[in-house]
Amino acid sequence: MKIFKEIKKVKDIVRLWRLEDNKIGFVPTMGYLHEGHKSLIERAAAENDKVIVSIYVNPMQFGPKEDLASYPRDLERDAKICEEAGVDVIFHPDNSEMYVPDFCTYVDMSIITEELCGKSRPVHFRGVCTVVAKLFHITSPDRAYFGQKDAQQLAVIRKMVEDLNFDIEVIGCPIVRDQDGLAKSSRNTYLSPEERTSALALNQTLKKARELFWSGINKTDELIKFMKTELEEDSRRKVDYVEIVEPRTMQPIGAVTEKNCCIAIAVWVGKTRLIDNISLDEKL
Amino acid sequence: MKIFKEIKKVKDIVRLWRLEDNKIGFVPTMGYLHEGHKSLIERAAAENDKVIVSIYVNPMQFGPKEDLASYPRDLERDAKICEEAGVDVIFHPDNSEMYVPDFCTYVDMSIITEELCGKSRPVHFRGVCTVVAKLFHITSPDRAYFGQKDAQQLAVIRKMVEDLNFDIEVIGCPIVRDQDGLAKSSRNTYLSPEERTSALALNQTLKKARELFWSGINKTDELIKFMKTELEEDSRRKVDYVEIVEPRTMQPIGAVTEKNCCIAIAVWVGKTRLIDNISLDEKL
Repeated sequence: MKIFKEIKKVKDIVRLWRLEDNKIGFVPTMGYLHEGHKSLIERAAAENDKVIVSIYVNPMQFGPKEDLASYPRDLERDAKICEEAGVDVIFHPDNSEMYVPDFCTYVDMSIITEELCGKSRPVHFRGVCTVVAKLFHITSPDRAYFGQKDAQQLAVIRKMVEDLNFDIEVIGCPIVRDQDGLAKSSRNTYLSPEERTSALALNQTLKKARELFWSGINKTDELIKFMKTELEEDSRRKVDYVEIVEPRTMQPIGAVTEKNCCIAIAVWVGKTRLIDNISLDEKL
Repeated sequence: MKIFKEIKKVKDIVRLWRLEDNKIGFVPTMGYLHEGHKSLIERAAAENDKVIVSIYVNPMQFGPKEDLASYPRDLERDAKICEEAGVDVIFHPDNSEMYVPDFCTYVDMSIITEELCGKSRPVHFRGVCTVVAKLFHITSPDRAYFGQKDAQQLAVIRKMVEDLNFDIEVIGCPIVRDQDGLAKSSRNTYLSPEERTSALALNQTLKKARELFWSGINKTDELIKFMKTELEEDSRRKVDYVEIVEPRTMQPIGAVTEKNCCIAIAVWVGKTRLIDNISLDEKL
């Protein structure tokens, strides 16, 4: 496994791989890898001849008051996980390699980005689209792997690939959870023991709402009201949003008519903002 | 030569060409081809194994009051020119092929796009960047050819390719002019005989300003004032802008210190808006 900081080195090795007709799988990450990332990497390794993982905490997708500086980093540990999972190249650039001083090009999106996380993080998806477009051009993959935990990000990337005609298959992978149901996230490391216990309510509330839906309640305002009450029962938790959306467009719906609808939530637990989601068609 | 309306057909043939290690040259156009386009296509044919020309009047780069509907079109004539110049594929999509009904992704740029044409055509370069990014993904070229007449467009595309890490060499080609100096443009077809004569002032004024510069005047405000006076001598003409800019960033400069600076002008001649430019280091 090689670790490259330079764009040119990645492009050079990709060009060699292409000459030998290798299929390339790409997993973009911000590092501090957990079991969720590992599941993406292992799937990429199983489905492709070569695997590139990018580890880059992209400043452009963080708002001015967000956790860019404190976002956890551990390249050594990440490299070990990647090597064991069959990665060929880690791309780990500095900011100066990714953004020239007079950088001024942006990939932006309307509609899908205006709901959910886009409301509380207004510059977030512009940063995500821009960096992912760059990474796609640098790594030139056949397939790119994203976690379903970031449901809106997955929808945004799928739409960007469709609208801009990227020749890349976007593959969404299931959420990986701890045994007690907490969705894996690099940000879980911010939680105190009490907060971590409190954070279990995210998954539990999603599951309860799905049970309510299957028991016959299909009005979204009733389901949302129930969830908000549950989530704010503990004063450690503060709801950012609870929405029931069409999964491709991320547009909120009035009544659940399609079972593939997605309940997406973002909740502050102490000073940590966590997201989770569930599809109503998942088995109980 | 093949003419394809479908994105998939272009991607399929490009994939075949790539397997045989062909270099691909790409010339994006809005059709109604003239000698300027022909010079780009011939250079692309000389430098690459395969040449794709796109002919597409992109609605996204026209403002609401601009000449989208009246923009001249003649596919049959264009196809003949392309065939003679050695084109392998013309990509000539419908709007529905390029923009799905819920299209919502944009490539946008700040700074370079805020001067010159960007001031009077505020959505123009967003449309240009977005469609060129799409066309680059569809045609996957090694080299792309643009005319120097659209100096700002060339600077914008170069910057987009740099910032988003496209693996494409952008080649700017010299302005092609009629014998009397009028820069070739599909929009010249809008001009009445009197307007066409009046339009000669664009190139003539640029050349006079360059003479003034070489005679020792390097203050841009003096040069600009001179040009505005010359250009508005005839009431058929109305200046949109006259600027002296750094050619890479398109930022106006106060005094000409580098001889590669560019004088760029846009002038309404009757109801037709024409652009032209000159580099101060071109020989007199």
